[in-house]
Amino acid sequence: MKTLLAVIMLSACCGTTLAAEHPRARALGIPFDGTPGPLNAITDVAPVAVGYTTLIEGAGAHAVRTGVTVILPRGRATLDKPVFAGMFSLNGNGEMTGTHWIEESGFLEGPVTLTGTHSVGTVRDAVIAWRIKQGKPDASGYWWSLPVVAETWDGELSDANGFHVKAEHVFAALEGSRGGAIAEGNVGGGTAMMCHGFKCGTGTSSRVVEIAGQSYTLGVLVQANYGARSELRIAGVPVGKLMPMKRPEPGDQGSIIIVVATDAPLLPHQLDRIAKRAGMGLARMGSYAGNGSGDIFVAFSTANAEAAKGAALNDARFVGNDHLDDLFNATVQATEEAIVNAMIAARDMRGEDGHYANAIPHAALVELLKQYGRYKR
Amino acid sequence: MKTLLAVIMLSACCGTTLAAEHPRARALGIPFDGTPGPLNAITDVAPVAVGYTTLIEGAGAHAVRTGVTVILPRGRATLDKPVFAGMFSLNGNGEMTGTHWIEESGFLEGPVTLTGTHSVGTVRDAVIAWRIKQGKPDASGYWWSLPVVAETWDGELSDANGFHVKAEHVFAALEGSRGGAIAEGNVGGGTAMMCHGFKCGTGTSSRVVEIAGQSYTLGVLVQANYGARSELRIAGVPVGKLMPMKRPEPGDQGSIIIVVATDAPLLPHQLDRIAKRAGMGLARMGSYAGNGSGDIFVAFSTANAEAAKGAALNDARFVGNDHLDDLFNATVQATEEAIVNAMIAARDMRGEDGHYANAIPHAALVELLKQYGRYKR
Amino acid sequence: MKTLLAVIMLSACCGTTLAAEHPRARALGIPFDGTPGPLNAITDVAPVAVGYTTLIEGAGAHAVRTGVTVILPRGRATLDKPVFAGMFSLNGNGEMTGTHWIEESGFLEGPVTLTGTHSVGTVRDAVIAWRIKQGKPDASGYWWSLPVVAETWDGELSDANGFHVKAEHVFAALEGSRGGAIAEGNVGGGTAMMCHGFKCGTGTSSRVVEIAGQSYTLGVLVQANYGARSELRIAGVPVGKLMPMKRPEPGDQGSIIIVVATDAPLLPHQLDRIAKRAGMGLARMGSYAGNGSGDIFVAFSTANAEAAKGAALNDARFVGNDHLDDLFNATVQATEEAIVNAMIAARDMRGEDGHYANAIPHAALVELLKQYGRYKR
Amino acid sequence: MKTLLAVIMLSACCGTTLAAEHPRARALGIPFDGTPGPLNAITDVAPVAVGYTTLIEGAGAHAVRTGVTVILPRGRATLDKPVFAGMFSLNGNGEMTGTHWIEESGFLEGPVTLTGTHSVGTVRDAVIAWRIKQGKPDASGYWWSLPVVAETWDGELSDANGFHVKAEHVFAALEGSRGGAIAEGNVGGGTAMMCHGFKCGTGTSSRVVEIAGQSYTLGVLVQANYGARSELRIAGVPVGKLMPMKRPEPGDQGSIIIVVATDAPLLPHQLDRIAKRAGMGLARMGSYAGNGSGDIFVAFSTANAEAAKGAALNDARFVGNDHLDDLFNATVQATEEAIVNAMIAARDMRGEDGHYANAIPHAALVELLKQYGRYKR
Repeated sequence: MKTLLAVIMLSACCGTTLAAEHPRARALGIPFDGTPGPLNAITDVAPVAVGYTTLIEGAGAHAVRTGVTVILPRGRATLDKPVFAGMFSLNGNGEMTGTHWIEESGFLEGPVTLTGTHSVGTVRDAVIAWRIKQGKPDASGYWWSLPVVAETWDGELSDANGFHVKAEHVFAALEGSRGGAIAEGNVGGGTAMMCHGFKCGTGTSSRVVEIAGQSYTLGVLVQANYGARSELRIAGVPVGKLMPMKRPEPGDQGSIIIVVATDAPLLPHQLDRIAKRAGMGLARMGSYAGNGSGDIFVAFSTANAEAAKGAALNDARFVGNDHLDDLFNATVQATEEAIVNAMIAARDMRGEDGHYANAIPHAALVELLKQYGRYKR
Repeated sequence: MKTLLAVIMLSACCGTTLAAEHPRARALGIPFDGTPGPLNAITDVAPVAVGYTTLIEGAGAHAVRTGVTVILPRGRATLDKPVFAGMFSLNGNGEMTGTHWIEESGFLEGPVTLTGTHSVGTVRDAVIAWRIKQGKPDASGYWWSLPVVAETWDGELSDANGFHVKAEHVFAALEGSRGGAIAEGNVGGGTAMMCHGFKCGTGTSSRVVEIAGQSYTLGVLVQANYGARSELRIAGVPVGKLMPMKRPEPGDQGSIIIVVATDAPLLPHQLDRIAKRAGMGLARMGSYAGNGSGDIFVAFSTANAEAAKGAALNDARFVGNDHLDDLFNATVQATEEAIVNAMIAARDMRGEDGHYANAIPHAALVELLKQYGRYKR
Repeated sequence: MKTLLAVIMLSACCGTTLAAEHPRARALGIPFDGTPGPLNAITDVAPVAVGYTTLIEGAGAHAVRTGVTVILPRGRATLDKPVFAGMFSLNGNGEMTGTHWIEESGFLEGPVTLTGTHSVGTVRDAVIAWRIKQGKPDASGYWWSLPVVAETWDGELSDANGFHVKAEHVFAALEGSRGGAIAEGNVGGGTAMMCHGFKCGTGTSSRVVEIAGQSYTLGVLVQANYGARSELRIAGVPVGKLMPMKRPEPGDQGSIIIVVATDAPLLPHQLDRIAKRAGMGLARMGSYAGNGSGDIFVAFSTANAEAAKGAALNDARFVGNDHLDDLFNATVQATEEAIVNAMIAARDMRGEDGHYANAIPHAALVELLKQYGRYKR
Repeated sequence: MKTLLAVIMLSACCGTTLAAEHPRARALGIPFDGTPGPLNAITDVAPVAVGYTTLIEGAGAHAVRTGVTVILPRGRATLDKPVFAGMFSLNGNGEMTGTHWIEESGFLEGPVTLTGTHSVGTVRDAVIAWRIKQGKPDASGYWWSLPVVAETWDGELSDANGFHVKAEHVFAALEGSRGGAIAEGNVGGGTAMMCHGFKCGTGTSSRVVEIAGQSYTLGVLVQANYGARSELRIAGVPVGKLMPMKRPEPGDQGSIIIVVATDAPLLPHQLDRIAKRAGMGLARMGSYAGNGSGDIFVAFSTANAEAAKGAALNDARFVGNDHLDDLFNATVQATEEAIVNAMIAARDMRGEDGHYANAIPHAALVELLKQYGRYKR
């Protein structure tokens, strides 16, 4: 029980100190295109807030390595003001609840929550319960009753069948959510995740683009748990083939959830388009969206805060289709970097039944980049 | 050749006189829900313009019974100002070109054109050619190069394999397009169509709804060529079973294209929703969307005329989701009435190889409605 | 606690006796097209099993009127053998989890479970937990980890925010599931539901069709909670207008989940088509799929039991597209009848805070059918 | 007229000699993953046949640089035996007719035809006309009446508004279609196309994979006309940034049509999945699927030749979902190589109004690959 409390405290996750402590891809000399925002994180898109609860308890038979990540598009104002949203399922071997309503209404109402596969239900109902605690639902009784909860499988390193995520962990992540620099790697819903046979987890990145003299930010957060080793490319270098696995390679299993936020004003059908481009960033890493991989993406815009208050008539601003390319490109770029950030921030983990995953060795990776002319000092 | 010219003259289709001459369902005493606009036609939605070319030539072996219908969302201003649009394929055994771009961009750029199955290509390229004649394409060279052309099969009564529709017929329909009352039944692309084993064709209807004190109009135009006799219901009366076919019944073959226009300001994803409701009006007629039926629907909004001019930033007004129900209901109602109007306006036709189709007998239909308590004097 | 146990006992739901006791639409003289199976129920499709847990406890402030319905496509063999499946969202203001994987894989793996909106999460994780109790997941660890759980809102008559459905209620419904005649009306997930302003709930129906000399059965189960009073049609009679609500009418809110089962061999993309037709049956009842209505449908085929065992090569049989029409029509017919059955079987209910809903008055309904020539003795 | 005949003769396109003459990416030392088939072409998938008509006439104001490419899934047997098929629109700023029926039926009936944007209509109706010449349509009259015709824009180098493609050019390509090695670069529908600011056009590639001891082939043919220079990557090397354009860069405009063929037995919904992976190969080239790019993909399987003959019951074999990964990966790999092959085979072209495009300089490219450790001798 003491352990549990300690763990919940981790949900005060996002301190600048903590965030500053973990290594990032760019700092290692990995080259990326485009211009990141000041934090190079989804939280560069104001007023997006992120919260984590990380559960790391025990060892051996029932070791717990799991957690919850929450993304509140408008921080606390998320309670009252939906965002325009879209989504795309590149390979639907996964769960993202609440998407029927996103596709139908064009709105995301409430937070996006990420966790392990077997905790989606608990997290979903907890999001509703938390909402109820914050005040009354709207007249229809439906408001925020269709929460968006997505998952990737953490049963390799964690006791998934133990159902260790509880409602209070969700509440803690929601209560602790805030803007600013955020932790990456073995945190939140991404605690036990693996990419291309390396330890992986949560990663983030952002891009700033200028459209007709106006500056916009687009940020990405991934919960990354996908990929075959042999296919891994970083900055175009075939890293996976150069760092082969010693044990037999399991193929492109696992899953990746990608959340894209932007303050550029976009309509729902345009956000579907943005969500599709997340898969193109994933492709550059070497994914072929294996059958076992749940690759599901959601995108939202924090603009048009007054557009969805249930009025009979609403006004919305939007970027013209002919001016979207930089946002498309930014999505591809930030997705790629967010995944690499997840890999670089992750640390070796030993979990359930002694299963373990090593993080990608930074020095060896830098060596390869230099060898292939892709090191950027 | 003389015949041909004579036929093209028919494309001056839409005179009030002509339109006033054909019978309509409501006037016969068939009850419908909702309040129609002044013309009870898609042209109640200003500035929608409609044009027809009707080709009726010869008899016997190569009899021609075909044509072209054009719907210009903004009349001549369609050339410069796209409309927000959406679509839905209830059963895709048919063609509607240009829909990849509607779904992607949220815009319909140019007219919607309806014809017989084997003329879609000719009509498509003719729409481009006409556009080129009106002025230069935009800088990208792509403007209006992805025309929306839909079809239903007219090979039962017309020599479809003779490819009788030519570019000039398309030009004539475009040039002759205008607002006001429009012809129904055996006209335009609907010339040779059949519904539920009766002669059918082109039909239209509209509804006026009030949302938060504001009045909006929604109009429907159908090119109807679908349906099994035994399933036909009119105003809930099982008319098809009460007027069985004498020859063996072919099942729910054929197709129906439904075009929905509204001046209510709706976003593209909301217009997808409108398009879905067209299928619910079809269902009330007794359709089960048979495998052989191409049931494809497009919906557009004439509001937000300045929203799509290619600017970097645009403003759009839209009805809130919670206020859409009357528009949904209007779509169902107007679709149902437009189909019945097509049946009631149609006249007996003898076509290729002596094939024939009789229009539904009006007096007998009225008798049935009376018998089932559904006659509205 | 005693109450709770008593309630769970209700999950032994499906006795012929109990089922025989509730009235059905056909027996009242309501005419329907097509030929039903022996039970006129989804369980005519062998080996489909259905289970319910019905929770009716207390009165007033926190009255509980809720439950769980489970549909196991292959009964207990569902554990090992997925079914080909498809789905369709007519209006996505609702939840059906697990559909990303249905759409991707073409398979439904495990049961379909129906409950109230705020219990989807609990039910989802409970389905996983139950599966774990039955034996080991497959090698990938993913088997049956993406349960299909759908909902309609029962917060009008039940204390939805009390989260009264617990894992043991799900287990009880699963354990109690079986074939044979099944209860309708105020049972299972449908306990507190309302249609067109009348008490409603769970309903079922089936059709037998013959394709090329072979007999197939298609069954439907609905959890029905949708519809405006004024739009209600039964057998084409405008019943809703003839039985107007005394209190102000709330519009087409609520939701309806429709589950279609068939033993006809169909491929996944064909089952998407079947699912679409469910919406056409709904349309005939007077629904326009209001914005507030979550109208989401799933269809599966119990044929091809050996097709999905994870082999590298599999054989599947399927009905040719040109022979699907009777199955399409059966879907429309059985959906319509299942909804009417839900209304006819439902009984008056008083629930949370004294909210109440009356069942449709049978005698008055029969009178109307007679008046409109639609009574079938 | 003499010119025209000469041009048509080019449709005898596919001689081994001709094909052997054009350079290919692999021979230059560009490294690709996976094992190609003997021809490294879509025609490695028996019995796929390909035909081209290439139109190169005149210079200056109305220079013609266009053509038609046809892909017959079963060669001449395509007339009688559809193939299972799927499709995906990554960015729908383009046309591919006939896809409503592919998505609905799961079948591709007839050839896939590729041309320039303004010739889609002519080509579509010509495919129908050719089919009529080959024999009677089936009983329904619908067979092969919904042809699949896709386009990319060739108005930069060719007089698109001159509508130079005629029915006889389509007939010639169909008549000339055959298996064996096929031409690449400036041929067929790809004659005038450009990629990443370099001359491009038609390209092809294939992969052989083994699934449970069985060998399958997957082939890709692209008509490539997309991409920003600065984003071009070849084998992971940022070639575009290293070979910047001298004139202002137009962004990721244009389009790419990707056709995937395989002899692996796959069901329609699995072929949708294959089509999606084509976009991941495109992503590796540096595309972000710009707004102006019509990126539409179709995939078909030549297996199950007897499955679609209209019988009431059919048998189909299919690869289990858990065994699809190598086919997914092959799609990504072959798409990437087909695009590079199109670029490498293309030759400098001067077209309408003196517009010109240079092919990528082979020697300089090889130099870059060497410099970045990606040259494979």
